Amino acid sequence: MNPALNLLLNHRSYRDFTNQPVSDEDLDAIITAAQRAPSSIHAQVSSLIVVRDPAKRAKIAEFAGNQEWVAKAPVFICVVADFAKTQAAVEFAGEKQIIQESLEGFAVGALDAGIVVTTISTAARALGLGTVMIGGIRNNLQGMIDLLGLPPLTFPFIGCCIGHFASEPPLKPRLPVKTFRHDEQWHGVPDKATITAYNTELMDYWKSLGRTDGQSWTENTARRYKVIYNPTTKPVAIKQGFTVEK
Amino acid sequence: MNPALNLLLNHRSYRDFTNQPVSDEDLDAIITAAQRAPSSIHAQVSSLIVVRDPAKRAKIAEFAGNQEWVAKAPVFICVVADFAKTQAAVEFAGEKQIIQESLEGFAVGALDAGIVVTTISTAARALGLGTVMIGGIRNNLQGMIDLLGLPPLTFPFIGCCIGHFASEPPLKPRLPVKTFRHDEQWHGVPDKATITAYNTELMDYWKSLGRTDGQSWTENTARRYKVIYNPTTKPVAIKQGFTVEK
Repeated sequence: MNPALNLLLNHRSYRDFTNQPVSDEDLDAIITAAQRAPSSIHAQVSSLIVVRDPAKRAKIAEFAGNQEWVAKAPVFICVVADFAKTQAAVEFAGEKQIIQESLEGFAVGALDAGIVVTTISTAARALGLGTVMIGGIRNNLQGMIDLLGLPPLTFPFIGCCIGHFASEPPLKPRLPVKTFRHDEQWHGVPDKATITAYNTELMDYWKSLGRTDGQSWTENTARRYKVIYNPTTKPVAIKQGFTVEK
Repeated sequence: MNPALNLLLNHRSYRDFTNQPVSDEDLDAIITAAQRAPSSIHAQVSSLIVVRDPAKRAKIAEFAGNQEWVAKAPVFICVVADFAKTQAAVEFAGEKQIIQESLEGFAVGALDAGIVVTTISTAARALGLGTVMIGGIRNNLQGMIDLLGLPPLTFPFIGCCIGHFASEPPLKPRLPVKTFRHDEQWHGVPDKATITAYNTELMDYWKSLGRTDGQSWTENTARRYKVIYNPTTKPVAIKQGFTVEK
């Protein structure tokens, strides 16, 4: 067996944590690994806010739409696009940073946040811990900014809960690989038969967990994507200096 | 030793590849692992375009600013935000997708692309292969879109070269961890002494490689961020249907 590959092939999101703390040694290793991840133009634009304070975690759980596992897991790491840090670099060089005015800049902040949060999660799971990524912090971006003291030119894209898990969920079914993998050329969207079969598979998964609130792939995606899900992303981005005008 | 953690702690970008092909078995395992990565609202918005055709890889190498390793590595995987796929889900549910009109939608596409490309890279490295992420495809987004047959509502955010490496580069120095890790609250930008020391460390690294074109952290970041680096990101996003008006 290949332990690292096996870890990735068995990814699941853990939401049931014990009260056992994450050791400082483990947390340090996770953060060292995360910093080793590559970054766009080696700017190292991401910063982490490590939140262990229970009152703060309870607040973040609420911001994220009452995700109680954020309050339960002993560590929450918020991944922030930190163009205040890169601005210090640009000013050191005697220049003026303007990348934050562009969609490219915002996209790089998000991409790099995705790279870092994945590395955090994999490193923690390599240490036998459970993790779950929390995009729900974008439900209340201003709350996160105020709570973590985030200045202009920073943006909290995503977070990750880390802790010892009390139970391990089963693997959640994915769409058939043919809908994900395209060779040489994009080959089209999933056909109706494929969608119907996957919806059934996902509903069977929810039933197996005893969850009556589970939705099919199409119902769940429609519910979020027929509206502007997280409508404050743009106004808060602008307020933080990411005008995305260019 | 912990093999998975060790892999992450020893991340480096490989750019020197042999001609040895990547086996179908390895490629399948990498893609299976990538699909297992979590996605925002479980929409599974990302799609992969696997490029093995040498002529296409030569084109992509050119688009990315003459990154010859894209032509050399036998596999290039482009990670695409595929809101055409999610639109098929939303339409199946009898609704109309509008998330692409929002900055939130574009951010999710980028974040999820970051999550997927990191999983691709880690899975490939777990199999003993070398990888390097290629954000440079955003230098010529329209070229990528035409080459890969990408329809409206899709966007190629990033790619990854995969191959057997001919040589292993040393670890590239990072900023001190205190500039990356903030506890409970964001604590400020790197101070001048820290920046100066890191600039020196990075220049020493370039010298150790015999590279005379290497720049300090501040010069390199300033060069890219004092301008709108990749100025076509916004116009091409709009053309693809990502108006980001909301």
